[in-house]
Amino acid sequence: MKQGRFITVEGPDGAGKSTILNELYNKLVEEGRNVVKTREPGGVSIAEQIREVILNKENTAMDIRTEALLYAAARRQHLVEVVIPALEKGSIVICDRFIDSSLAYQGKGRDIGMTEVMNINQFAIEDKMPDLTLYFDITPEEGLKRIAGHDGREVNRLDLESLDFHQKVYEGYQSLIEQYPDRIKVVDASKSKEKVFTSAYDIVKRFIG
Amino acid sequence: MKQGRFITVEGPDGAGKSTILNELYNKLVEEGRNVVKTREPGGVSIAEQIREVILNKENTAMDIRTEALLYAAARRQHLVEVVIPALEKGSIVICDRFIDSSLAYQGKGRDIGMTEVMNINQFAIEDKMPDLTLYFDITPEEGLKRIAGHDGREVNRLDLESLDFHQKVYEGYQSLIEQYPDRIKVVDASKSKEKVFTSAYDIVKRFIG
Repeated sequence: MKQGRFITVEGPDGAGKSTILNELYNKLVEEGRNVVKTREPGGVSIAEQIREVILNKENTAMDIRTEALLYAAARRQHLVEVVIPALEKGSIVICDRFIDSSLAYQGKGRDIGMTEVMNINQFAIEDKMPDLTLYFDITPEEGLKRIAGHDGREVNRLDLESLDFHQKVYEGYQSLIEQYPDRIKVVDASKSKEKVFTSAYDIVKRFIG
Repeated sequence: MKQGRFITVEGPDGAGKSTILNELYNKLVEEGRNVVKTREPGGVSIAEQIREVILNKENTAMDIRTEALLYAAARRQHLVEVVIPALEKGSIVICDRFIDSSLAYQGKGRDIGMTEVMNINQFAIEDKMPDLTLYFDITPEEGLKRIAGHDGREVNRLDLESLDFHQKVYEGYQSLIEQYPDRIKVVDASKSKEKVFTSAYDIVKRFIG
């Protein structure tokens, strides 16, 4: 049986991932490939219910470890209901954010510890690590500037965290790049959209053949 | 500052824990002790919301690892909002079921693996293991017989699991008793209510002095 490929897209906010991910998806579909584009919670009812608990504005008492466990739970359910079935059908699955986001944002950004957050996520995903991860590299300063000024999307709760928080997230990603050099490929996201797309596409193309 | 004591009560269904726990609580209060009786989710809003997701009958697609992560998340929040503040005030906290239930029911009963379930629960509780655990020992056959016939409480979803499931849960508890001989004290729950209460009370009394 043909086994699909699991590609994740990561990076700080404002790196322009979502735009490039859409273009990448369209291009691969044009080429006649079997591609599934998704992001957590991905329309999975149980994962949506979990996200509601995480995002409920009344839940100001939420502990950061409770939050990390809930993200891992939602990830598990989305993986089992969407990602794994698609991979088993031989699809290329492109997922906007996955385990590395938890490691960088909660492990490093929130100071829980990346190893600790890795442990619960390994429970959630078992051996289903991404086959390839595109990391959109941009400094926190530049990312925040883009969000504030140019990309037209609404500013969300995480955007409003301090620069110090985003700096820690950035450092989190840097240590993941060192830890997983074979899996994580860096795209320079400070370049023009066209150049960023071309680099991302080249990496994917080389990977899927 | 005076630090409280954290006591948990564990055992298979039908072992009569809840009845004895109530009597124990009343007795300790009569003695003028500062006691808090609780059970997850313990009226904690965020933990209640998580339990709703777990118990929602529509959620038939729920993966066992998602469920285990949700239990750990609810446990974390109840611990942080109820148990730890009470312990910091010097209370004796008696909690009906805690980490050992997840290890026995999900780790062993559902075959996830006790070490795996321990890992995510250690993330949830950090170093806050119970100081003392009363284990109400009864065979699965006897426990199920009691639930079916005599104790008047409603039969729930777990009661209806196969005897094989309850047998595995029982084995799970047995291996915990071997692993934590200093923490877990066994009460023979096949005896009369009066005798079970006396054994439980003696153990607690010796422990709290």
